[in-house]
Amino acid sequence: MNKNKNIEMANERPLILITNDDGITALGIRNLISVMNEIGDVWVVAPDKGQSGMGHAITVNSTLHVDEVRIDDGPQKEYSCSGTPADCVKIAISELLPKKPDLCVSGINHGSNSAINVIYSGTMSAAIEAGMEGVPSIGFSLLDYSLDANFEHSKVFIKKIAENTLKQGLPQGVILNVNIPNLSVDNIKGVRVCRQAKATWEEEFDRRIDPRGRTYFWLTGKFVNLDKGEDTDEWALANDYVSVVPVQYDLTAHFAIQRINSWGL
Amino acid sequence: MNKNKNIEMANERPLILITNDDGITALGIRNLISVMNEIGDVWVVAPDKGQSGMGHAITVNSTLHVDEVRIDDGPQKEYSCSGTPADCVKIAISELLPKKPDLCVSGINHGSNSAINVIYSGTMSAAIEAGMEGVPSIGFSLLDYSLDANFEHSKVFIKKIAENTLKQGLPQGVILNVNIPNLSVDNIKGVRVCRQAKATWEEEFDRRIDPRGRTYFWLTGKFVNLDKGEDTDEWALANDYVSVVPVQYDLTAHFAIQRINSWGL
Repeated sequence: MNKNKNIEMANERPLILITNDDGITALGIRNLISVMNEIGDVWVVAPDKGQSGMGHAITVNSTLHVDEVRIDDGPQKEYSCSGTPADCVKIAISELLPKKPDLCVSGINHGSNSAINVIYSGTMSAAIEAGMEGVPSIGFSLLDYSLDANFEHSKVFIKKIAENTLKQGLPQGVILNVNIPNLSVDNIKGVRVCRQAKATWEEEFDRRIDPRGRTYFWLTGKFVNLDKGEDTDEWALANDYVSVVPVQYDLTAHFAIQRINSWGL
Repeated sequence: MNKNKNIEMANERPLILITNDDGITALGIRNLISVMNEIGDVWVVAPDKGQSGMGHAITVNSTLHVDEVRIDDGPQKEYSCSGTPADCVKIAISELLPKKPDLCVSGINHGSNSAINVIYSGTMSAAIEAGMEGVPSIGFSLLDYSLDANFEHSKVFIKKIAENTLKQGLPQGVILNVNIPNLSVDNIKGVRVCRQAKATWEEEFDRRIDPRGRTYFWLTGKFVNLDKGEDTDEWALANDYVSVVPVQYDLTAHFAIQRINSWGL
């Protein structure tokens, strides 16, 4: 009995949870599903609408709806959820999946989540939420914001990184932030494990007047890389490498504890 | 001329930006304003409604409105903003304030932002956003979720920590996360500089049926501290100390880079 069970276990395909922040119908998640179907049993739980810039928002003052849907043919199960990317992961693991997933992948995001963008990213927050629940987890982004971006070239890297993560595991508390240049496979030079570049957004609010005379604003801005290091994600991407940044949700600035202790509060 | 200017500068009161995530009328921010009016020139730019659990969300697909308002008497200038806590900080610094503030304080949050709660917290995300823009910044939270919480006891600690931050400055990339026990001043034992405790939320979704027969969910859950360390914020708060955790927005798990390099991607 036990022997049979072990054989069965060994043959079991990994259970993979997929989510994103561009919404369940986005081309990026459709491509991610097609890659993951080659590796494991796929469950998709993703927002029913775009949720870009949602950071690690969760829905605490409103209700959540979940609907089983079928968007593309394939073996995957799919649910659309009215919540944020982080909500999708919580409700997937707590209510929908048959067991804790072996891997969570989020994306493929339409546009970069390198450097400080990790903070604002719904894609990465979903991946971080899964990591917080003890699931090895990766966020994938392609450096092309267009709705009809070509994700074909990114698939070879995504498959390789996902398979390695399943095989090797990740250190506790660590999630991978993977950004992929918008280049053909032949023109990508390889993969670099990096640190998050120091960068900032120079905000520029576009101030307008509505038809009733009231002022309103659109948030715009210019991304500025402040980091000359060659060990950063920005350097890797600018030099045609895929960037892999291990990120953590222990935000403690351990190096600062001593200094603030010296204040004698 | 220059000498006069220096004298004038030395006498200038610091410019302090105040925001929160419970909304501009919440009792917590009203108390924070009254403390900061003693220290400097206060500008309030805060959400026009509650934004709890918003994490580091920003408004990229919608417009923002800002209205000058007057809620309490006092020397402060006040603006309510239709956006998230992070939006409030961005638009304050970019559009509203006469110059870059000397300090940003966020809160006083109604309820704890200790341990992993920092990730979900709009209060802390606003403080972190200011830190990202180079402004010394602190998020304050009181361990009492009630709307009519008594913030009086917390004021002595808030004033002391804010004054020290103005005087000493903070290391680049570091923001303070301050949590205050719901106790009288006499019963608080002091202030501890801590690391973020390892903790988790055990999700429990409350599944209900709406009047039209459709299933919906409320997110609930139980906070579980997984950390026995006596150097954590959870330990400090459980032992009647104010906790001060220096947090950073460089999310890189530097210790993991070597290991993931060994995968040979």
